[in-house]
Amino acid sequence: MKLATLRNGSRDGALVVVSRDLSRAVSAAAVAPNLLTAFENWSQCEPRLRALFDDLEAGRAGGAFAFDQAAALSPLPRSFQWIDGSCFKNHLRLMALATGRDPEPEMNSPHPLMYQGMSDDFYAPRGDVALPREEDFIDFEGEVGIIIDEAPMGTRADEADWYVKLVLLINDVSCRAFVKREISLGFGWMHAKASTTFSPVAVTPDELGDKWDGRVHLPLRVERNGTLFGQPDASQMSFSFYQLIEHAAHTRKLAAGTIIGSGTVSNVEYQSVGSACIAERRSIEAIEQGGAKTPWLKFGERVRMEMIDPKGRSIFGAIDQQIVRYARP
Amino acid sequence: MKLATLRNGSRDGALVVVSRDLSRAVSAAAVAPNLLTAFENWSQCEPRLRALFDDLEAGRAGGAFAFDQAAALSPLPRSFQWIDGSCFKNHLRLMALATGRDPEPEMNSPHPLMYQGMSDDFYAPRGDVALPREEDFIDFEGEVGIIIDEAPMGTRADEADWYVKLVLLINDVSCRAFVKREISLGFGWMHAKASTTFSPVAVTPDELGDKWDGRVHLPLRVERNGTLFGQPDASQMSFSFYQLIEHAAHTRKLAAGTIIGSGTVSNVEYQSVGSACIAERRSIEAIEQGGAKTPWLKFGERVRMEMIDPKGRSIFGAIDQQIVRYARP
Repeated sequence: MKLATLRNGSRDGALVVVSRDLSRAVSAAAVAPNLLTAFENWSQCEPRLRALFDDLEAGRAGGAFAFDQAAALSPLPRSFQWIDGSCFKNHLRLMALATGRDPEPEMNSPHPLMYQGMSDDFYAPRGDVALPREEDFIDFEGEVGIIIDEAPMGTRADEADWYVKLVLLINDVSCRAFVKREISLGFGWMHAKASTTFSPVAVTPDELGDKWDGRVHLPLRVERNGTLFGQPDASQMSFSFYQLIEHAAHTRKLAAGTIIGSGTVSNVEYQSVGSACIAERRSIEAIEQGGAKTPWLKFGERVRMEMIDPKGRSIFGAIDQQIVRYARP
Repeated sequence: MKLATLRNGSRDGALVVVSRDLSRAVSAAAVAPNLLTAFENWSQCEPRLRALFDDLEAGRAGGAFAFDQAAALSPLPRSFQWIDGSCFKNHLRLMALATGRDPEPEMNSPHPLMYQGMSDDFYAPRGDVALPREEDFIDFEGEVGIIIDEAPMGTRADEADWYVKLVLLINDVSCRAFVKREISLGFGWMHAKASTTFSPVAVTPDELGDKWDGRVHLPLRVERNGTLFGQPDASQMSFSFYQLIEHAAHTRKLAAGTIIGSGTVSNVEYQSVGSACIAERRSIEAIEQGGAKTPWLKFGERVRMEMIDPKGRSIFGAIDQQIVRYARP
């Protein structure tokens, strides 16, 4: 099953069911007005949404219409919780080496790195990324993520698959100028990580077939201004999403609609597959060429992220955004 | 005006207007079903809530009933954003000294310390604090906080007073066993800071009279098991709430209903006024007596927090909670 949220003037948008090929959609208003509400009662809503999806695939859904990714908001335009891991050891290693830190402690930690992100206002997948200053060193981060049903405190990795309801892509927009100060203070990201973007479509894990086992075993294609920037495979995640759920639930329960991210997808074969963020490429340049060359994003630049299945079809639709200067209303 | 949220079986509770002396309440359902919804359209809702408050104070509110703090949830039982400062230099100094760190960088920073907290599930002010293990070193933190209307990115401190709509008390429950690891990783709090508690009642800033100017100029009384633990004055906040809004809005807009906390209230006169968290008292013991003595919270212990106005009246009602072992449903 595939789901999306269409712009309708409300903060939470309107829930629609999307066909597997992303060409058509049908309103899910009879089930729930929006995805956040559906997650309040997912066990009741999911079978009814799946029935709509089956009707849509069979060509018998009344009121079906052409699905336009540009009309989509993030599947959850806001949520009560968004937490993001940093679970690709290759990325951690490169970032540490480039800044003269010993990468071993992070790489060998039994605990995933994870931060609490802001969840009150996500960008639209085809909307603008609006930020105040190029001097804040604007970057993208290509990730995969999940949306879960309510999980009790103490949920273990070996029982966590039940809670994973949807999978999606993420552009964790970052302002790198603040990273050094904020990481040294230890209190996590405030200025460096503001609004995040999610793919136009979120899909149930079964849509990924054997490419899902708690990790997503497919490459994430990242373009900058229409040119391939990287296509690392998400397989190399050093902790599974099940382990991330266990970590997150250690001293808290997790609300229905909690979104959990993988962190920047990164591969040891970075020379051939490239990177999913500018910071990693700059780290590689610093390590191998003595200095970073690739510039941070400027206003007017575009970033695109998409994941293609083995038959060549887009699974989640494409994040495709322009970076613009924030205009205060 | 004073507001509270009563338990009604829904996650967001039922909004009520509370009398100044906290003895009576009246349903605000005709204005908004809950406070989160009221914040979606605060400029429309506030005058209607104030009219209800005036009626209640004048004894002409139809359907008024006795207000029971034990029936209250946190004013926002959940929100889309909760961000917490650590803005009492005395606290920062003591915590740094006790762990052998140089306190000067934090104390002289032009930027407030601030973390993104989990906002999907707050404790009820008279409910239990349910955590899995005493060995996680359970602590309380007495704080003051605000709830704001939507603030645009780039909001400056000198214009921030307009956005402050409500003031309340906070018990930022902490699991201290995780502090060292999480602060050293730099990604902020996941295990150390889970659900938070807010006072039964939130009040508009005018209710504080000349005790409000972007800081709250009153002592916060903290009791452990019925014995006074500390009563530091919140005046000594090193950044005002207006400065916290400016800091938070640097690369993001802030959603209506965002809650911002002061961090543990702490005074340079800690010898006479005590502390608002166990960690600070243990730090003082470590510095002055060579070792921490005061134990962390055990299951069955109680914590109470209240702020009394110059005429001896409780402003926000009292947080009064028992620490219990989390029972997985």
